[in-house]
Amino acid sequence: MEKVNGGICAASGFKAAGIHCGIRKNKTKRDLALIMSDVRAAAAATYTTNLVKGAPITVTKKNIADGFAQGVICNSGNANTCNANGIEIAEAMCELCEKHTDVKSGDIIVASTGVIGQPLDITPIANGMEALVNDLTYDGSLRAAEGIMTTDTRVKEIAYKFNIGGKQCTIGGIAKGSGMIHPNMATMLVFITSDVAITPEVLQTALSADVQDSFNMVSVDGDTSTNDMCCVLANGMAGNKMIESCDSDDYKEFCKALFAVTSYLCRMIARDGEGATRLMEVTVSGAATKDVAKVVAKSVACSSLLKAAIFGADANWGRVLCAIGYSGADLDVNKVGVSFQSKAGTIEVCRNGAGVDFSEEVAKEILLEEEIKILITLDSGDATATAWGCDLTYDYVKINGDYRT
Amino acid sequence: MEKVNGGICAASGFKAAGIHCGIRKNKTKRDLALIMSDVRAAAAATYTTNLVKGAPITVTKKNIADGFAQGVICNSGNANTCNANGIEIAEAMCELCEKHTDVKSGDIIVASTGVIGQPLDITPIANGMEALVNDLTYDGSLRAAEGIMTTDTRVKEIAYKFNIGGKQCTIGGIAKGSGMIHPNMATMLVFITSDVAITPEVLQTALSADVQDSFNMVSVDGDTSTNDMCCVLANGMAGNKMIESCDSDDYKEFCKALFAVTSYLCRMIARDGEGATRLMEVTVSGAATKDVAKVVAKSVACSSLLKAAIFGADANWGRVLCAIGYSGADLDVNKVGVSFQSKAGTIEVCRNGAGVDFSEEVAKEILLEEEIKILITLDSGDATATAWGCDLTYDYVKINGDYRT
Repeated sequence: MEKVNGGICAASGFKAAGIHCGIRKNKTKRDLALIMSDVRAAAAATYTTNLVKGAPITVTKKNIADGFAQGVICNSGNANTCNANGIEIAEAMCELCEKHTDVKSGDIIVASTGVIGQPLDITPIANGMEALVNDLTYDGSLRAAEGIMTTDTRVKEIAYKFNIGGKQCTIGGIAKGSGMIHPNMATMLVFITSDVAITPEVLQTALSADVQDSFNMVSVDGDTSTNDMCCVLANGMAGNKMIESCDSDDYKEFCKALFAVTSYLCRMIARDGEGATRLMEVTVSGAATKDVAKVVAKSVACSSLLKAAIFGADANWGRVLCAIGYSGADLDVNKVGVSFQSKAGTIEVCRNGAGVDFSEEVAKEILLEEEIKILITLDSGDATATAWGCDLTYDYVKINGDYRT
Repeated sequence: MEKVNGGICAASGFKAAGIHCGIRKNKTKRDLALIMSDVRAAAAATYTTNLVKGAPITVTKKNIADGFAQGVICNSGNANTCNANGIEIAEAMCELCEKHTDVKSGDIIVASTGVIGQPLDITPIANGMEALVNDLTYDGSLRAAEGIMTTDTRVKEIAYKFNIGGKQCTIGGIAKGSGMIHPNMATMLVFITSDVAITPEVLQTALSADVQDSFNMVSVDGDTSTNDMCCVLANGMAGNKMIESCDSDDYKEFCKALFAVTSYLCRMIARDGEGATRLMEVTVSGAATKDVAKVVAKSVACSSLLKAAIFGADANWGRVLCAIGYSGADLDVNKVGVSFQSKAGTIEVCRNGAGVDFSEEVAKEILLEEEIKILITLDSGDATATAWGCDLTYDYVKINGDYRT
């Protein structure tokens, strides 16, 4: 497996575009993105578990019910959620795609991100469609990645090449996600493209399994969005023998490449959490079960108090223990060990559930880095899990204290 | 029922004290509190459900296992949690009480609050005991309330008079709690005293039921502390006929007075949440079941995004809908209504799950008040519940970014 450039356009047969059409006031900010496969592709998706679901999710579900899709349209600046005419607008976006390309509206994945509860005006989208379609190129990934950003400060894109049965395949993805991040079954908006040949059923199985260890293990603020969506298109243009079973080596190879893309995007989303200055990667090992490992990792990654301590580069391991304790997982707190790690070094701060003497100065130096690993050992088995989060900062409050205006 | 002064000393036969003994560096801050009943009292308590429990909780549980206690000792500045010698120190605190008063160490409730994982030195407590006991007076509630404060900015105390069978009874309480507030089965530190005559079993039943609707419905930051404790002492000095059954009118009268004290303290704790500028009171009505009402109310009160919006006085009702949607409660989102209310007025912002036109200016005016009510209607039954929280502010981050130093 090899990292390559090109994001969602790295795989054969995918074009992408991103323009400013006028949904957002800031004219330098792209607010409309399009991804198109040259041919119909197997499609799979996972969605938010929030009972309140954005209208685009309803329409997307219907459109990929047959296991296939060919394009993705996504706007930023407005979530098209909790609006009386939401479905109508989401369908209109698909119909605009059909009108301006030769792709059927029923083969379009539609997504929206931004403010909830303000009607989405179709006019700027309709007016911008021609420019959007003209903007489609085989190297347009960056523009599409920019088009789906809201409070994100960094573009999130990645691609890998890998081999299946001697055929070179490629998979790439883009994501947006910065606030309202506590995915459940899916996350924010993630669009993944691949030229691998794979059946829709197998593709869905791979994606559904993947998100349990990737996006469902990210949290910025504990708020599960109404519009989370992770979808993957696989157009088969790599020419590999169709992956039709989850028992094959080819399937495993694909899953590895998929996880390389998704776990990278997870780190990017957490690192770019609203207002974040630091990435927190919480790894639990020695757990009795995978479930315990995941519950503990996520509880620690979600603790507001710990997140604020990490912002202050304060080695306040008591808050790690506290979050382990209220996680709901069944474990022996007297066996818990905690270390902090970054590229500046590693420091053990807790052993057998109690503090160990450590140098506050060394700890501070470690915690002042941008990527902090919190290593937790439970000494009760060999299951492990990783969760991703970020620090809680003044800027998180600032960004969310007056987001709509 | 009538509100009276005196806090935990309002009921007959209770003395209290609070001094600075040296656990905290700031000499103007009291850090040791004592509450003493003139006679042995029926005692009940609820504790944190965090698996990591402070050593004082273990010792208190043992000491009130027989249903009786006579005194409470509590220090601030150090939680005495995750320390190898924690139990030993907590027991030493009880023994110091026995040495300096005529109350047995086995009749002492012991509590600690502050930093986790730093050994608690018994020396300043031992040195301060004589001064502490000398400080005990029948009007010392305020000093004790100050002695248990950590990052609290306001003293939290309250008392009510009520009647049982023609006898005037009194109940009062003090509390501390500002951060690491997301109680589960109990909360932070709450000490309640009453002169009512009641059996320990009935007292425990009343308290356990009460906390489900009071302290378990408060959240400042979603972090369930390791040291939560709510205890009540009832010394019988009011002379009412002993309350021996949960079916009696006297029991109901007592529960009403107890809830008057606890719900007042809940509001005080939420209003004084770390860094908070506003109290959020979330009331859900029209729920199919009490459980649905509680889960929804708490989910909304805990949303970081909504809490930040309330700080910004931003009527971002989409975040209310979002938090209702991910609460896990089974409900029809198309029937949800939301209004914001304060002493400046009431404004409806959402009806049948979709936005209604409203004046942003009027909404701003309402949300700029110090106490904000979020009224949610589910239109599916007649169950109701209230949860208390506060806004998320720069100061919360500041306070917790470097708490230990």
